[in-house]
Amino acid sequence: MNSFVLHPQLAKDTVFIGRIAGSQLLLMNDARYPWLILVPEHDDLRELHELTEASYVEVTHGIRQISERLQALTEAPKMNVAALGNQVPQLHIHIIARRHDDHAWPGPVWGVGEAVPYNEEEQRILVATLQEQLLG
Amino acid sequence: MNSFVLHPQLAKDTVFIGRIAGSQLLLMNDARYPWLILVPEHDDLRELHELTEASYVEVTHGIRQISERLQALTEAPKMNVAALGNQVPQLHIHIIARRHDDHAWPGPVWGVGEAVPYNEEEQRILVATLQEQLLG
Repeated sequence: MNSFVLHPQLAKDTVFIGRIAGSQLLLMNDARYPWLILVPEHDDLRELHELTEASYVEVTHGIRQISERLQALTEAPKMNVAALGNQVPQLHIHIIARRHDDHAWPGPVWGVGEAVPYNEEEQRILVATLQEQLLG
Repeated sequence: MNSFVLHPQLAKDTVFIGRIAGSQLLLMNDARYPWLILVPEHDDLRELHELTEASYVEVTHGIRQISERLQALTEAPKMNVAALGNQVPQLHIHIIARRHDDHAWPGPVWGVGEAVPYNEEEQRILVATLQEQLLG
């Protein structure tokens, strides 16, 4: 039985894209960056190293696939991959495509300004594109 | 032939601890946080996903070992693991033990204030401890 429940803050800030590597793939609702979040569907994990050996291999393989494909899709010059979780304790991994002219460059994106939500049409198209290009 | 050369900024900011998982393990010379950096010894890589499949598995396994052992050693309530590289392009992975009363909590550590160098005695003891506890 999988009793996994997504943390309410992540549920509030993101849009569901699909499942990969035993995880939920989510889009941050922030049009300033192509910003994905991978959340392994295991309750009560806080650290990447707390995954079992098999799940760790699966999740890190998923990170590799998503990062590589998101960079190809966006042609971003830099990817940022991070497991922080200082504010939302549920284990989640950020995979963010960065541009040299983005809002926070060259700093990290966390805590910089306010999120700019996608409009409905943008979001619908982006989610469909990500489902096809990242999970296909 | 391995022509790997550590980026001068990393060489300047860190102290060498040892080698693990085809990488150099370095200590950031910043006494505010137990802050390690893992640098795969491959020239011209910028992204984690650019590692070959075999090296990716090796490096991510190294990250797991270092993160787990550094958390056990420091009893830190939270670990931060990140591959950013927006300012120093050479692929490097941050593994940082965070405390609820540290300088940047709950934000990320990058770009917050100035590094506080270890004194010589502190640094010598810490490096020896890390060599024994993380790489042993």
